[in-house]
Amino acid sequence: MTDLPKRIEIHEEGPREGFQIEAGPISTEDKVRFCEALAETGLHDVQCVSFVDARRVPGMADAVEVAQTIRQRPDVHYTGIALNLRGYERAVQTPLHITGGIQMSTSNTFSIHNTNKNNEETLVEQRRQLDFFKARGIPVESAIVMTAFGCNFEGEIAPDTVRDCVARLLDLADEYDIRLDRVRIADTVGWASPASVQRVVGTIREKWPDLKLGLHLHDTRGTGMANALMGLQMGIASFDSSCAGLGGCPFAGHKGAAGNICTEDLVFMAQEMGIETGIDLDALIECARLAEEIVGHSLPGKVMHGGSLSKYRAGGHT
Amino acid sequence: MTDLPKRIEIHEEGPREGFQIEAGPISTEDKVRFCEALAETGLHDVQCVSFVDARRVPGMADAVEVAQTIRQRPDVHYTGIALNLRGYERAVQTPLHITGGIQMSTSNTFSIHNTNKNNEETLVEQRRQLDFFKARGIPVESAIVMTAFGCNFEGEIAPDTVRDCVARLLDLADEYDIRLDRVRIADTVGWASPASVQRVVGTIREKWPDLKLGLHLHDTRGTGMANALMGLQMGIASFDSSCAGLGGCPFAGHKGAAGNICTEDLVFMAQEMGIETGIDLDALIECARLAEEIVGHSLPGKVMHGGSLSKYRAGGHT
Repeated sequence: MTDLPKRIEIHEEGPREGFQIEAGPISTEDKVRFCEALAETGLHDVQCVSFVDARRVPGMADAVEVAQTIRQRPDVHYTGIALNLRGYERAVQTPLHITGGIQMSTSNTFSIHNTNKNNEETLVEQRRQLDFFKARGIPVESAIVMTAFGCNFEGEIAPDTVRDCVARLLDLADEYDIRLDRVRIADTVGWASPASVQRVVGTIREKWPDLKLGLHLHDTRGTGMANALMGLQMGIASFDSSCAGLGGCPFAGHKGAAGNICTEDLVFMAQEMGIETGIDLDALIECARLAEEIVGHSLPGKVMHGGSLSKYRAGGHT
Repeated sequence: MTDLPKRIEIHEEGPREGFQIEAGPISTEDKVRFCEALAETGLHDVQCVSFVDARRVPGMADAVEVAQTIRQRPDVHYTGIALNLRGYERAVQTPLHITGGIQMSTSNTFSIHNTNKNNEETLVEQRRQLDFFKARGIPVESAIVMTAFGCNFEGEIAPDTVRDCVARLLDLADEYDIRLDRVRIADTVGWASPASVQRVVGTIREKWPDLKLGLHLHDTRGTGMANALMGLQMGIASFDSSCAGLGGCPFAGHKGAAGNICTEDLVFMAQEMGIETGIDLDALIECARLAEEIVGHSLPGKVMHGGSLSKYRAGGHT
C-alpha cells in the first residue's frame, strides 16, 4: 500500500442526495440543521441542495430557503448543484458557494436516456453553460466522467474510452482557460470493482500523471468500500460520499441499493489506515444518526450502527 | 495485486447465522429449502445449524430435524457446529459432516465473557474436546483465532499476540497429531481495517509462509469487503461468509450491523477481479432473495438488490 495518500478530502453529498430521494416530506428546518451539523465535523465541503424543477423533485422545492437559512462557518464550502442554466440562475442568487462543472458520459446511450442529448449535443450544451459561467464569473472547479466503469445500456466500458472522455473535458477546459482542480471519475450505475478501478485510474494516470483525480463511487453491489480502498492504494485523495449512505434506501429494491459510499464508513477506514481526513468521526456518526432520525428509517451506513472504536480505545469500556 | 489467488473457497455460514439470530419463527421446511438451494449454487460447504441449547437459542430447537431432512448432494459438505461435548453428541448422530475445531481468543477477557473460561481453562477444555474427537473419530480440520483484530474489552490486539495464539493452536494440533487444513483468523467484534488485515496476515505469514489461512470477517463498521480485498491481495484464498449478509439485522442497532460479510457480494467482487469461485452468482442471488422472503424483512446484502451484471453483459437490456 505504498501509494496511500497521507490525507484525503471528502466532498459530502448526503443532504442533497437524501433530500432528493427520500419520500419525505423533510422540513426546511431539519434540512438546515443537518447541513449545519455536518459543517461542524471538519468537512470542508457540504453539498446542501440541488436547484432543480420542484415539480420533478418535490423534496427540493425549498432549496433557496434552505440555502438562505444555513448559518455558514467561514471555513466550509456550502455548495449546491444545478443541471441547467435556469437552475444556475436560481443558485447564484443564494449565499451558497456555486461552481460550474463540466461533464461527459462514456456512454452515448446513457447520455440520451439521462439528458435527452447525445454526447455531441452535450458538448454544445456544455459550451453554452461555460459561456454563462464566464459571463457570471462562476468558477469551474471540476469535471466529471460518468458511467466510467460500465453502463446498463452499453455494458463494459473500455478504460481507453474513459481516457478519451477525460481528454475531451481537458480540451474543453483549455478552450475556456479553465484550470480544473480535479477530474472526478464516477461509477454512476454501480459497475465498478477493485479491478476496474485499478485499470481505469491506471490508464488515466499513465497519460496524465499529475492530474488530480477524484472518485465518485456507489455501493450498488457491495464493492463500494473495496473500490475506495483500491482508489486509496492508487493514491486517490479525493472522494465524494454521503453521510449515513443517504441516497440509497435499503427498502426500495434496486433504486435503494444505489447510494453513494457512506462518508463515516470511509472516514473510519481511512483513519484506521493512518490516513488523515480532518474529520471528527464521532461527530460525523452523530450526524448520521440525526439523518436517520430526520428521514425516519434506518440508513445503510454501518459504523453509525457498530459505533466508533474511540470509547474502547479510551479504556472506559470493560 | 500480484498476490491475488486464482481461486477462492467460500464457507457458507448464512443458514446457521440466520436461523440463530432471526426473531423467527422460521419453519423447518424453510430452513431445509434454504440449505438445499445454497448447495445448488456451487458452494461446497454449507453450515446448516448449530447444536446448542434450545432454551438459549430457540431458533435451533429443530437442528436435528433440519439436519436429517436435507437431501444431500454428494459434492457438498453440509456442516453444523457445536460448542460443547453435549452438542457434539447430538451432532454426530445426524447425517451432517461434523468436524471438530480448536480455537483461542487473543483476549483473555473476551474468553471469560464469552465462555466463562480464561485462556488456560479454555486450553484444558480444548484437550477434553480433542480427546472426545479422537475417541469418536471426528476429524479436526481447522483452528480459529478469535478477536484477532481488536477486542471490545482489551482494545488493540498486537499482531504478535495473534501470532502467539496461532503458535499455541499449532502446538495443540501437533500434540494430537492433527494436520490442520487451515487456520481461520476472525474479526469477531468488527475491529478490522485493511491496514490491520495486512499487519496481522503479514505477521503470521512471516513465521509460517506455507500455512493456509482463512478470514472470518464481519461488516460491523463498513470495512468488511475492503478487508476481504486486502485479504485477497495478501493471497488469502479461504473466506467465511453469509448469504444475504444473514446474521446481521439492519434494524437492531449494534447487534444488527455485526453480520458476516455477504457471500454473494464477495462472489461478485471476486468474479469481477477474475478470481474463480466455482459459484453461480445469479443462483446465489436467488438464494439471498429466498432468505429475505423467509425472514420477512430486508437483509444487508447489496448485489441481490442491485442485481448482477450478467443480463447487461448478455445484451438483452437496451
